Formats: sequence, structure tokens, C-alpha cells
Amino acid sequence: MKIRLARPIGDQDAGLSRRARSLVGQEMFKVLDRAKEIERAGHRVFHLELGDPRIAPPAVLIDSVARHVARGNVGYTSPAGLPELRQAVAGRYSRPGRPLAVDNVAIGPANLLINQFLDLTCDEGDTVALFSPAFPTYWAAAMHIGLRTVGVPLDRSNGYQLTEAAIDQALAARPKAIIVNSANNPTGAVYGSEVMTYLAEQCHRRGIWLLSDETYGELTFGQPFHSLLGVGLPRVAVISSFSKMLSVPAFRTGFLIGAPELVAKVALSNSTLYSCLPTFLQAALAEAMPVMDTYLAGVAAHYADISRRCGEALGTVPGLAFNMPNSGFYFFVDVGVTGLGDMEFCARLLDERHTAVTPGSAFGPAHASQVRIATCGQPDDVMEGVRRVIDFAAAMTAAARGAPSLPDLRRRGR
Amino acid sequence: MKIRLARPIGDQDAGLSRRARSLVGQEMFKVLDRAKEIERAGHRVFHLELGDPRIAPPAVLIDSVARHVARGNVGYTSPAGLPELRQAVAGRYSRPGRPLAVDNVAIGPANLLINQFLDLTCDEGDTVALFSPAFPTYWAAAMHIGLRTVGVPLDRSNGYQLTEAAIDQALAARPKAIIVNSANNPTGAVYGSEVMTYLAEQCHRRGIWLLSDETYGELTFGQPFHSLLGVGLPRVAVISSFSKMLSVPAFRTGFLIGAPELVAKVALSNSTLYSCLPTFLQAALAEAMPVMDTYLAGVAAHYADISRRCGEALGTVPGLAFNMPNSGFYFFVDVGVTGLGDMEFCARLLDERHTAVTPGSAFGPAHASQVRIATCGQPDDVMEGVRRVIDFAAAMTAAARGAPSLPDLRRRGR
Repeated sequence: MKIRLARPIGDQDAGLSRRARSLVGQEMFKVLDRAKEIERAGHRVFHLELGDPRIAPPAVLIDSVARHVARGNVGYTSPAGLPELRQAVAGRYSRPGRPLAVDNVAIGPANLLINQFLDLTCDEGDTVALFSPAFPTYWAAAMHIGLRTVGVPLDRSNGYQLTEAAIDQALAARPKAIIVNSANNPTGAVYGSEVMTYLAEQCHRRGIWLLSDETYGELTFGQPFHSLLGVGLPRVAVISSFSKMLSVPAFRTGFLIGAPELVAKVALSNSTLYSCLPTFLQAALAEAMPVMDTYLAGVAAHYADISRRCGEALGTVPGLAFNMPNSGFYFFVDVGVTGLGDMEFCARLLDERHTAVTPGSAFGPAHASQVRIATCGQPDDVMEGVRRVIDFAAAMTAAARGAPSLPDLRRRGR
Repeated sequence: MKIRLARPIGDQDAGLSRRARSLVGQEMFKVLDRAKEIERAGHRVFHLELGDPRIAPPAVLIDSVARHVARGNVGYTSPAGLPELRQAVAGRYSRPGRPLAVDNVAIGPANLLINQFLDLTCDEGDTVALFSPAFPTYWAAAMHIGLRTVGVPLDRSNGYQLTEAAIDQALAARPKAIIVNSANNPTGAVYGSEVMTYLAEQCHRRGIWLLSDETYGELTFGQPFHSLLGVGLPRVAVISSFSKMLSVPAFRTGFLIGAPELVAKVALSNSTLYSCLPTFLQAALAEAMPVMDTYLAGVAAHYADISRRCGEALGTVPGLAFNMPNSGFYFFVDVGVTGLGDMEFCARLLDERHTAVTPGSAFGPAHASQVRIATCGQPDDVMEGVRRVIDFAAAMTAAARGAPSLPDLRRRGR
């Protein structure tokens, strides 16, 4: 018998599933891949595309990882997570009168927990409501699962605050689930206590599942943060991530806190999908828990400072519209004045100025004139990247107004 | 407004999706969780339930992890995998006349790659064919996605070999995809070159997707192993895992090798689900690649030796039926002679003899009189665990024959 030679699949999607065809991924990772190509060609790229903190993680965490690996702590553990880490998370996030137990906590990559939450609570064709702009994975996960996605727009004019009107609009879509994200990526907005409570209560009354993504909740710039952890409602789950809190995105370790029944399903999903997360990383994170408060205070102060500096720089460019973030490390900037759509703006900024940012449309279809700038890199690199964004935007704006700048003429002449 | 107190979800599955209700997970992790409870109660448990190698990983790998973490290599990388690791895998698995490029390789947890392969190639209601006994994740993933699963039984009488008749039976079910697993978990069988080629060719002719799970392919006991890597057919994908090859299951890092179009979809799925795997683990694995051949030769010899010793011990028990494995570190043993079903056998073995093994029905509904024994732990522990299996089986067999053993009478008297 003869084996025929490989041949390319004619149609790229030939024979693949509907779910395969609906995959969109996270746009910023496509930007990263393109940026890496440019780097391999010998150029230096300024990375402002990913929420990839370049601050040193706590030393105790790094030492602990090395010690656990050297000790041979490389076996499997429970799909729900290492008991010590579940216990440490339960302890940290217990509130007076609202104790959390180990069975309220599932460990997993926060990004996957978003996918799992939707997979566990929604059937194909169900509706999920988001407040837009919204983190790309919410859209990507919903599309992959075959959900109808309703994006309720929030308004830059009030600092992208969540309002009761926006909540009512989301509820009117009769969703099976809602995802809310305070402190917000990409706007940096921190939602008030009353509106968050209203949202949780309305979801509870209507049997709607609510995921509160609180990844940036402990990185606010001094404002009080209202977590939904305390509400204790069976269909409200909270996720967060050590990636951002301890500056270790490659650990891919976060957690979901919720009712034991939901946590048990997440564990079963973990068991089905990937068995468990690395034991030595979970053990090291459990040991690093005592330094978290001190570490978080330091990094939040750092992010507040670099946000102020970036905001000042971006504010010098007429026509670039944005709000000052109150948390985290993102700016969501309207670059419509340049006459470029977000995809073209990002592609040209990367190719011509070697600076990577993320197109706004990854955060919802209504945001095709915006881009997200991540300010969590090395501060000097961030500031240089922001300067390049500013120069590029100014040049494009001038060109759009019929007065092309000199460097731009040169580029076209090549 | 008042927030009401949490209350349990009445029906455990209330409000959850169909997919949530169809989750079964991997049975051996449920055994692990129960075993850990017994350990927390102060008892020593012999772990023969999971394929969790307790052999020391290569020193260069461990050192490299510590170095990369200390160096701050904790940022994100490409969803398709760290380019250096993709390149190293492509280099290692290229064959004369069949070079592999980076875009033939996607990095991910092998267990998740099984789920992704089915998700990318099959729609709800499609059929996937397995050769039974088959690794629990194949069943769990298919159930989660809503596939019809056809398990074609292989026969202990011929050493659980794959045959053309079994392949024809699988093809007759008109599957969208087939998963084949040589060297096999749990039987340890290594399939011949001709039958594997027949399977690949038949799938190719009929447009059936074929996943060849070759996780144990480099852990055979001297027999030649026939990989499907060389066939170069667009709908044939191969997966394997560093977990077993380098004794680092907690790294959760494996790879899929296939057509660039499928690899691109896996990368997009990675991006949607979990962004990327830990950078420092991928970098360390790429650096450890040069020692793999030497390391694999050592561990395969070790597993051959302990398999021989376990086989000799198990062979002393009349009525326990099993085949000697030709690869890996599992025994698939029929314990029907004890009069106990697999679930009861495993539960009582764990509770009464503190020895954990996996029920056979996790490997397919036809295997409810079998159990899987994993022999990859510390050799002394494995031998003690096997002795306990033997003692327990002998006691149960005697009891089933109406001559209860003394310890058993005592237990009933409690």
C-alpha cells in the first residue's frame, strides 16, 4: 500500500467544525506574533499590546518555584487546585460574616475560567450580555460556544461608568449570563458600590448567571473597590488572576470563587480539559500569599504613577480622546482624528514605528476607532512607546488634514 | 436594597448548561482526591491510580526552569507555543524526506489537545470512534462536546492488538474522527506498522480526521514503534507529551504535530482558551531536548524492569487476567474473579488497603470488571501497592467462593 504525499487542505476550513470556524482568539496575541517577527528581523519593538507586567515578581515567589521544582514537586494534583492554594485564597478573600471555604474556590487560568463559566452556564444560542468595551476573551469565548452576544455600550463622557440604565438594557436582552469587569480592562474605570449591588441583585432575581471579573480590582489607584465577593448569591461568581497581581502572567494561574456546586463543575471541567495546573506553581503562590498586600500596594502606586505620566503625554495631542484610568495599566484611546481605522492604525504603528498596541475592535464592534495601550512594561520602554504613538498619531492627523508630514512623504516615496 | 443570603442551588445542576451536565472528568483524579482525603486523615496511601511518574526528571531541565524563572522569563509568548520549543520539536520529529517546520507544531497540554482536536473537527452529534479500552479523556471530551462515541472493542486474547477488522468496524460507524493510541494506555500494546498504515490510509480516503496519541510511543520495551508522523496526510495529527517522556506531568506541556491549517486553528483555540503556556517551562524544555534520547532510554529500561516484576507478582494470583505490557507503565487487569465490580473493587481497595488504582469503566463501558494499575511511582511503593492489590484480590476471590478470609470476617464484624 502506498501513502500519498501531504497536500494542503484546499479550503482552509475544510472539514473543520463550526466551532473551529468561529474561533477568533485574542487580537493582542496576533499583534504579539507580528511584533516577534519584526524582532526576529533585527528590530527593537516597544510592546504596549499585552497586559504583560514587566515588574519583578516577589522574590519569595521566585525562590519558592525554584525550590519546589528542585524538590521534585512536579506531579499531578487535584483538578480543583492544590488544597493549600485553595485554602490560602479562601482565607484571603473571606469577609466578616461571609467566610469562604476551600470548596468555594477553584484554581485555573483566569482566561480559561471565563470560557468555562460561559460553557457551564450557557447553551448554544443563549445570550450573554457584556458592557462594551469588553475584554476580548469574553467575545471570543462567546463566539466559540455559539452564544448570542449583546454589547451594551458604556459612555466615555461619564468615564465609562456602569449605570443602572446600562444594566437595564443588558437585562432587557434576557441574557442567560452577564459578565461585568470592574476595575475595567481596557478603560480603567472602577464601578461604584451601588450600581454593582443593583446588578447582582437584578441577576439574582431573574436567575441570570453573573461573572464578576475582578482581575484588576486590587490594582486601583486609591479609590475604594467594590467586589461582588461579599454578596453570597448562588449564581454570582468572581474571578481574579495572580498574573496581574503578582506580575507573573506566564504562571497562568488564577481562581474562581463561587457556590460549591459551580466550583465542583469547574473542577470537573478542569479534569476533562487539562487535568490540573502545575503543582509547584500553585505551591509557590500559596507560600507567597503573605506578601501580597505589601507587593500590591507597591505595584498599584507604580501603575498610578506611570498612568499619570502617560496621561500627561497623551493629553498633549489635540484630538486624541481618552479617559484617565483609575486602576490597572491600560489607556483606551480614540484615534479617529487620524483618519485611520484601528486595524490600520495598529498595523502601521507596528510596521513603521515598531510599537505594538491593540486594536479597539477587539473590545467590541463599536470600538473600531480606538486602540488600547498597555503601560505595564519597563517604564522607559512604555514612555518611548507612548511617544511613538503620539508622533505617529500626529503625523497621521496632519496627513488626514491634507498636510502630510515630511517623514510620511518619505515613506510613501520608498 | 438588601442582599439575600446565599442558599444552595436546589438541584445540583440547576441553571447549568447541557455541557455542564455532561461533564464526567477523568476518573483517576476522583480516586486521587479520595486518596488525598485518606492521607489527610493520617494514613499512608500507595498511589497506583495516575500516570504520574515519580522518577527524577533530567537535572538540566530542573536547573533550566529555575534559571528562567529567576531571570524573569515569566511573560506571555505566542499561543502556538514558544518558537524555540516548536523548532526543537520540529527538529526532533522530522524524518528523512518528511521535514517538519515550526508551523507543523502547536504546543499545549496533551490532554487539552485531545479536547481541542475533537472540538475543531467535530460538530455536536458527529461520531468519534475509539478502540476500547481507551484513555478516559477521549470519552470525557467527546461527551462534553456532545459527540456520539463508538467504542470498538479490542481483544485481550491477541494482546489488545489493533486489527484491520477492528478498523473496518470503526469505519462502518461513519465517524467524523478516530483516535488511535499506540503505544496504548492502559493495555501497553504497541500496534504494528501495517495496521497503523492501513488505518491512516483508510481515514485519508474517507476524509476522516485521525488523531494518533503517541504519548507512550517512545517508552516501548525494545519493540519498534510505528509513528504516524511520517505519513504526511493532511487530516492526520499526532500528539505527545513531555509529562511522560521527561517525568514532569505538572509541566502540563505537550505538542500536536499536523498540517499547518490545523496547527493554526489549535493556536487560535489556545489564544481563546488560555492565551499560552508558561514561557519558562517551554524554554527549559527546549533546552532539555538534547538529553531526551539518553533519558528516554534510561526510563524505558526502568519501566520494562518494573513491569516485569509487577507482571511476575500479578501472575501468581489465579484468576487475575492481564497481558504483559510492551510499553509504558500500566497493567490492565481483569478482577472479575473477585466478584466485585471495578468501582467497588477500587473503592474498597482504597478504603481498606490504602491502595489507589483506577476503575476499568473509565476506559469504556465494556471494562467494568477491570482495573488499571499504574507502575510509574517509586519502585518500592509500586511493589507494595501491587502486593496489596494481590492480597485484596485473593481475599475477595476467596470470599466470592464462599470461603471468606479471616481479615474479611473481621471487617464485616465491625
